[in-house]
Amino acid sequence: MFVSADALQREKTHIADFAPEVAWVTRAGNTEMAEAIAIRPTSETVMYPSYAKWVQSHRDLPIKLNQWCNVVRWEFKHPTPFLRTREFLWQEGHTAYQTRAEAVDEVFQILDLYAKIYTDLMAIPVIKGRKSEKEKFAGADFTTTVEAYVAINGRGIQGATSHHLGQNFSKMFDISFEDPENPGTKVFAHQNSWGLSTRSIGALIMIHGDDNGLVLPPHVAAIQMIVIPVGITAQTSDTERKKLIGKAQEITNALISGGIRAEADLRENVSPGWKFNSWELKGVPVRVELGPKELADNEILAVVRFSGKRQTISINDGLVDKAKELLEEIHLDMYKKQEQIRDEHLKLCLDWSTFLTYLDDKNLMLSPFCGQPECEEQIKDASKREESIEAGIQAAMGAKTLCIPLEQPKQELPQACINVNCQNKAQFFALFGRSY
Amino acid sequence: MFVSADALQREKTHIADFAPEVAWVTRAGNTEMAEAIAIRPTSETVMYPSYAKWVQSHRDLPIKLNQWCNVVRWEFKHPTPFLRTREFLWQEGHTAYQTRAEAVDEVFQILDLYAKIYTDLMAIPVIKGRKSEKEKFAGADFTTTVEAYVAINGRGIQGATSHHLGQNFSKMFDISFEDPENPGTKVFAHQNSWGLSTRSIGALIMIHGDDNGLVLPPHVAAIQMIVIPVGITAQTSDTERKKLIGKAQEITNALISGGIRAEADLRENVSPGWKFNSWELKGVPVRVELGPKELADNEILAVVRFSGKRQTISINDGLVDKAKELLEEIHLDMYKKQEQIRDEHLKLCLDWSTFLTYLDDKNLMLSPFCGQPECEEQIKDASKREESIEAGIQAAMGAKTLCIPLEQPKQELPQACINVNCQNKAQFFALFGRSY
Repeated sequence: MFVSADALQREKTHIADFAPEVAWVTRAGNTEMAEAIAIRPTSETVMYPSYAKWVQSHRDLPIKLNQWCNVVRWEFKHPTPFLRTREFLWQEGHTAYQTRAEAVDEVFQILDLYAKIYTDLMAIPVIKGRKSEKEKFAGADFTTTVEAYVAINGRGIQGATSHHLGQNFSKMFDISFEDPENPGTKVFAHQNSWGLSTRSIGALIMIHGDDNGLVLPPHVAAIQMIVIPVGITAQTSDTERKKLIGKAQEITNALISGGIRAEADLRENVSPGWKFNSWELKGVPVRVELGPKELADNEILAVVRFSGKRQTISINDGLVDKAKELLEEIHLDMYKKQEQIRDEHLKLCLDWSTFLTYLDDKNLMLSPFCGQPECEEQIKDASKREESIEAGIQAAMGAKTLCIPLEQPKQELPQACINVNCQNKAQFFALFGRSY
Repeated sequence: MFVSADALQREKTHIADFAPEVAWVTRAGNTEMAEAIAIRPTSETVMYPSYAKWVQSHRDLPIKLNQWCNVVRWEFKHPTPFLRTREFLWQEGHTAYQTRAEAVDEVFQILDLYAKIYTDLMAIPVIKGRKSEKEKFAGADFTTTVEAYVAINGRGIQGATSHHLGQNFSKMFDISFEDPENPGTKVFAHQNSWGLSTRSIGALIMIHGDDNGLVLPPHVAAIQMIVIPVGITAQTSDTERKKLIGKAQEITNALISGGIRAEADLRENVSPGWKFNSWELKGVPVRVELGPKELADNEILAVVRFSGKRQTISINDGLVDKAKELLEEIHLDMYKKQEQIRDEHLKLCLDWSTFLTYLDDKNLMLSPFCGQPECEEQIKDASKREESIEAGIQAAMGAKTLCIPLEQPKQELPQACINVNCQNKAQFFALFGRSY
């Protein structure tokens, strides 16, 4: 987790960007250290001195390493759990290839995997794209990203990034080998790095959660179904009570045997209503109620956390299959709901005045953009507005590019950049918005 | 990974012991921080403020949490990979119980699991025991440990520890609940913590390794068998070469299907001899050679890394079963070898002059001991000797107690402590030695 000042500062663009938020250890016990040592804000500069030693020949390539670890970026803004924390956990992959083509291929393979984590596991639609020059990873040739939309405040959120580092780091750290086609010629490795962090949990909470707490998509819920016996009163006979509890356990076991992550809540010191609230708060996708009525009818009542929909399912007629179908249906419905919300807030926008109105209405805008960092800076400044604070919008922050979508709008690209004060030609449609 | 100075210093014995090696972050970017923040040397003081919030009733107990993480202890001695590093990785379990009996039970359950990791996975014999007052975890009521023996330098090495923290931390952090038997009475939780670190990898390397590199016990080897085609020369026909390589792959697949972690090394740019050395260095338990002779006889040659033993195994007559048996045999033989070496260096020792001789001969001593920290300090000082340096022993370090073995020697305990200058009565046999 430590990196020397020397290694950290080797790649100049890289350190320029990270320097303001690097945490430094300067004291051990009561001893002031002769040289302060940094805590990794990301591990390129920690790992690549070793890569340089490992790569002696093209036969040592590719190197493909992934690590799950903690990194530290000392934010001075107000911390927000999962979304902006000084320590966060992530996986970071670091690969090195002989050729650029292999490396670039991998960048997009990884991006596709990251997209699937959002769409297929977390039921969150994302837009795949490339980061602008201003927003790309410091030291990368280019950065790709998956971007999600948080409806509650209209902000975009970066889901995960996959960077092509080119030879920027390999030249600084001397990760090189002899060209097998061209003996005597030194070649530098082509590198990528890519990461997905615990911030994804924050996105999940913000995007699916509601006023009653978490709403977990079935594919990532630790408990997918919670079985709760109901309707037990002071009048319930001991036999009936035991029968009900026995059946609840039996159904839970059947669900578990079928591969569903189910649990029975058989606590006797809290009421069913208390349990309902508690599991709602925890976001369990389906609550299964079993009372004397259901027992008599040989069915259960399934209540869906995200929609509130209630349906009975027969206990003896394909319960497990129906339960699995229900979970898949919930996943799809949650995804579709978010996709619809996102699409409603995704605006094709060709002129500046509409841009500002759209922004205040919590939209993301697809607008023609020249791609220049100075222009992006101007757009950000010009869209910072006091009115937005007065209009109850959380922050007066300006808009930035979330990405340049890989899939561009069908609409022909206008000549002019969205920024009225910009003289450059538009190069592509970029996705603009307020962002985490 | 961060802990405030306030939380870190709450339990006084704890901080007294850890203070000299705590790393402090004092600067972020270019900003000197108003208050320095510590990097966790262990996580009691990080986690227990949360435990205090989570425990409101006896129904919130037990809490059983485990985390895999990095911790930092700023050693000023020369670092040694895996054995003494400033950052190390470990798992640390932190549990809280309603009663002392439950907590104490768990301490020994965990100790048994740790012992099994050494004996059943790493083929390393260990001695289970309790740490002396001087050596116990700072803030614990008592510490249990598994101790191994490193023959090459005659030192003991602590394998893993399981601590009963009593109510020491729960009182400082107010982890409390109302006594269910005695309404109105506040009770503090009974806590344990326990950990196993990457140091275990260092122990494995030191104990089993030899002059040719790593020697991995089969149960933890990532590759258990490496299949290498041999005997291919310039005279070998292309047909024969292909047949040999095909068969090597086929055998590897059969081993994998049988649940063995096998791999074929089919590289053509390095010689079999080069491969032999390379896999020997990496410690793969079994090298499987397949050459024209073996192919003709329909057998393979298995060479055992740790013993050098060679045996042929028929390809068509229960190859997988025989390979599995071989791996189990290797595990047992490696364990027995180390047990024998350890037992030969485990001396019952009742008088001080023999103690010093035994120590210089790289032994561990079971000696009567009063248990007092001052006495242990005296023993350590009195056994630090210049002669030991001259005799070529790695360090002039004195002996300390490794543990008070749970299983005490059959021999009747003498009255006198092993320390000639100690007036106290011996309380038990303790295991003494130089230690990592």
